[in-house]
Amino acid sequence: MAERPGIERLLELFAEGKVAAAARLITILENGGEDAERVLDSVFHKTGDAYRIGFTGPPGAGKSSLLNRLTGRFREKDHRIGIIAVDPTSPFTGGAFLGDRIRMQAHSEDPEVFVRSLASRGSLGGISNCTDEVIDLMDAFGKDMVLIETVGVGQSELEIAEKAHTVVVVLVPESGDGIQAMKAGLMEIGDVFVMNKADHEDAESAAREIQDTLRLKDIPAGEWEPRVILTSAREDTGIGELVEAIEEHRRYLEAGGHFAGIRRKILRSRVRNALMDRMERRLRQSAGVRDLLEQRMESVYKGEISPYKVVRELEELVSIQ
Amino acid sequence: MAERPGIERLLELFAEGKVAAAARLITILENGGEDAERVLDSVFHKTGDAYRIGFTGPPGAGKSSLLNRLTGRFREKDHRIGIIAVDPTSPFTGGAFLGDRIRMQAHSEDPEVFVRSLASRGSLGGISNCTDEVIDLMDAFGKDMVLIETVGVGQSELEIAEKAHTVVVVLVPESGDGIQAMKAGLMEIGDVFVMNKADHEDAESAAREIQDTLRLKDIPAGEWEPRVILTSAREDTGIGELVEAIEEHRRYLEAGGHFAGIRRKILRSRVRNALMDRMERRLRQSAGVRDLLEQRMESVYKGEISPYKVVRELEELVSIQ
Repeated sequence: MAERPGIERLLELFAEGKVAAAARLITILENGGEDAERVLDSVFHKTGDAYRIGFTGPPGAGKSSLLNRLTGRFREKDHRIGIIAVDPTSPFTGGAFLGDRIRMQAHSEDPEVFVRSLASRGSLGGISNCTDEVIDLMDAFGKDMVLIETVGVGQSELEIAEKAHTVVVVLVPESGDGIQAMKAGLMEIGDVFVMNKADHEDAESAAREIQDTLRLKDIPAGEWEPRVILTSAREDTGIGELVEAIEEHRRYLEAGGHFAGIRRKILRSRVRNALMDRMERRLRQSAGVRDLLEQRMESVYKGEISPYKVVRELEELVSIQ
Repeated sequence: MAERPGIERLLELFAEGKVAAAARLITILENGGEDAERVLDSVFHKTGDAYRIGFTGPPGAGKSSLLNRLTGRFREKDHRIGIIAVDPTSPFTGGAFLGDRIRMQAHSEDPEVFVRSLASRGSLGGISNCTDEVIDLMDAFGKDMVLIETVGVGQSELEIAEKAHTVVVVLVPESGDGIQAMKAGLMEIGDVFVMNKADHEDAESAAREIQDTLRLKDIPAGEWEPRVILTSAREDTGIGELVEAIEEHRRYLEAGGHFAGIRRKILRSRVRNALMDRMERRLRQSAGVRDLLEQRMESVYKGEISPYKVVRELEELVSIQ
């Protein structure tokens, strides 16, 4: 085997549209650190054009099959598709549950469909740390539509709303999904609700229930009213309506001049999150913090001083201009 | 109505064992800020004795009914019980879904059972910010057993492992709960697994499935092997076995000298979380940070500089001793 190309060479190959280079750069992004920042710094100016659609919902709702069907429709419209599937890490293997290989087999030969699975942070569910960066890379790679699938286990369901233009919540008419969705705050973030498995006998009443719940929200005139669509990924029904609902939401955002605002919101939250990650690392590495914790925590354990006293003391070690 | 007593008076009444004062102090803890810290600082030395049991699992698994039954058994053993139920905030009303009133009706006359519902942070699921503080207050109030119930929607399921001595994962033989549990990382954190609704025809096979999955974990000899218990909260069966499993886990922790370590872990994570909360607030309030963001974010929006460049610049505003 030849020597592995360095980052500069990978970036050249990436600029030439080489899929293998894009895949290697994503691995660099996943590993984080200075190399990842170098990659981001150099591709960032090519980003900002991709339309981002987030898909979330409970496990087993059929999100992957739905994405497969949707990808087919979007390809007919000549969109270039990036797909990011955030899988929870397997507690036993340390790897992601589903790999790229068993996903999206229908489109595996299509060079304009670029699929990547990311393992969620630790085994704790939630969205992967580097999801934003991988979206950027796909965007810079020329994908004009990035579909992001997150499993419905954790904050991921809600973080997705910070990263997407359109959020599609996928539910099935089973096991009180409607109530679960409401509890989990999904009703707040969905622009389009899909009741998948439309052939199920309870599908229509479950869809109506979602619709009724949405009506309670009292949406001001002129604002987007979430759509509820019945689909069956297996039977390939309702997919056209779903595409239409997504495109309608996109037109709504365009007409209202919302794009710039969404981009700003996404970038602000990235800067904030990245800053907090670094602060956490620096606090952990600080000798002053370590010494103070060593001196004082014993008294906290013994109940002699409250944890808040120590927090106030720690805070004095930090100064912000 | 008389004038509201101040914090000092509430703390006196609290020390005398007045439930109304404890309830008012919890509200102060919920509101946060300096008053909350004052309360904590003054009760903290009385904490450290309560045994903490966390209950988690998907919505609809019957956790509340199970807690009701368990509370009955623990009361027979003369435990003084505190119960904290973390409910997701309703997206529409802003309040918690279930209040204290409709919970634990069976024990509502028992002065040794103190129940409090906390709304989770925002509508985003997750555990309430002040759960640790309320556990402390119940502990300082003389409850020797604190049961914490979190809904299975989000990180709450996993954060509970940072707060409890024993974690009980409650599942039902429905809707692929086993797989969902595994995906959500619950298999990692459970010390006892309950398959509730034991009268369901699939209960035994579902319990076996959990057992089989646990076997894959390859637990070293001498370490705790999670138990799997079949219960029916409705029929009041299996509750004795559940009590026994919890007590067995407690004896395991005691025999191994694990208590001090758990207390340290809990307090360390509290100090860390509280420090990060304050850092976030201070960064948000810093004029230097605000000015720099104002100067530079426009260039980020335009794609002229990468968000990481701004993060590096922001980082230079912070110094840590």
